[in-house]
Amino acid sequence: MPKYVYHYFDIRGRGEPGRMLFAMAGIPFQDQRIPQSDWPQYKAKTPSGSLPYLEIDGTIMTQSLVIFRHLARCFGLDGENLLDKAKVDEIIEYLAEMKESIFSCFLGPQDEESQKKLKEKMAESVNKTCTQIERIIASNKSAEGWAVGKRLTFADIFIFEAFSIVLPAQPNILDKFPKIQTARLKMESHSLMKKYLSQRKETPF
Amino acid sequence: MPKYVYHYFDIRGRGEPGRMLFAMAGIPFQDQRIPQSDWPQYKAKTPSGSLPYLEIDGTIMTQSLVIFRHLARCFGLDGENLLDKAKVDEIIEYLAEMKESIFSCFLGPQDEESQKKLKEKMAESVNKTCTQIERIIASNKSAEGWAVGKRLTFADIFIFEAFSIVLPAQPNILDKFPKIQTARLKMESHSLMKKYLSQRKETPF
Repeated sequence: MPKYVYHYFDIRGRGEPGRMLFAMAGIPFQDQRIPQSDWPQYKAKTPSGSLPYLEIDGTIMTQSLVIFRHLARCFGLDGENLLDKAKVDEIIEYLAEMKESIFSCFLGPQDEESQKKLKEKMAESVNKTCTQIERIIASNKSAEGWAVGKRLTFADIFIFEAFSIVLPAQPNILDKFPKIQTARLKMESHSLMKKYLSQRKETPF
Repeated sequence: MPKYVYHYFDIRGRGEPGRMLFAMAGIPFQDQRIPQSDWPQYKAKTPSGSLPYLEIDGTIMTQSLVIFRHLARCFGLDGENLLDKAKVDEIIEYLAEMKESIFSCFLGPQDEESQKKLKEKMAESVNKTCTQIERIIASNKSAEGWAVGKRLTFADIFIFEAFSIVLPAQPNILDKFPKIQTARLKMESHSLMKKYLSQRKETPF
């Protein structure tokens, strides 16, 4: 088995789905958490000046979504056939857009006018994402309750993780999207996810 | 073979790499070009209110990068092994970010101050993208001159297409990045690409 070293800040942030992929696949990895205070020195050692990045037996891989898609492929969590793989990928793409709009709101200018605009954009993005993902899950003919096909995929992990950010602020957002809610709850009650969450280091975000 | 219908505006824009993928794989498809004037009525018929989208024997797929990655997988243009697939994906991700920064500049606010900021951001993005892609191509041990592995992949198509937007404005940008230039020229001189370009409908962008 390759030796994986996953470099990311000591937060959940953009990097958390990578850790969850390892946990759900039961694959060991070195969880290299970089304290914010070390970042200025650490940055120069990174391949692209950004985190996360992944080392696989010394091979370097950058870009969070590239890393997640690679791990999902390696771990058989990317969908059973070509159309399922595309559906998993489509769900990821919408969720990634939604998460970026949330991060823009948290990290963007905090003055009243900017925040009003960013919050409107975020609400629009959450609604668009939910509408599209509900449509994609609805096209799944399996009765198992996973988002795509008959088995757990990275789409379920990413849905669970992304809505764990949205739901504290908008607890009723999934009332209109029962299929997303089913997939989310199925993931939440999975024994490996429960184990991961119970052992995960607490961080503010 | 599935019947593909590719819905996009009557421009190159974000949709052109999809058409190039069909051309390089020699796979026929219906090139459904929507005139800008028809867009308001057409929008309501689209699955997500956006273009491009792809119909595959009636199955709907949205999000440009999802569509491109799906076609590359179907056509064997996504890399030979797991690490090559990730490298193709990584190149695509950097180029997609760069293209978005270019589109933001063209489509964003046109006042002097906004344009100055957007152009700085674009120049930074072009430089970052080139640096990262040059690094990724440099890790390819094959002497064939393709970006990843020993064969043509979607990375070569996307490199060629993305720099056809950058080079008219910055003709010397690739002087410092000889490996990208080699891959770009190899793609440009491919007989199927030459044929595609000679028959392609002329559009302003």
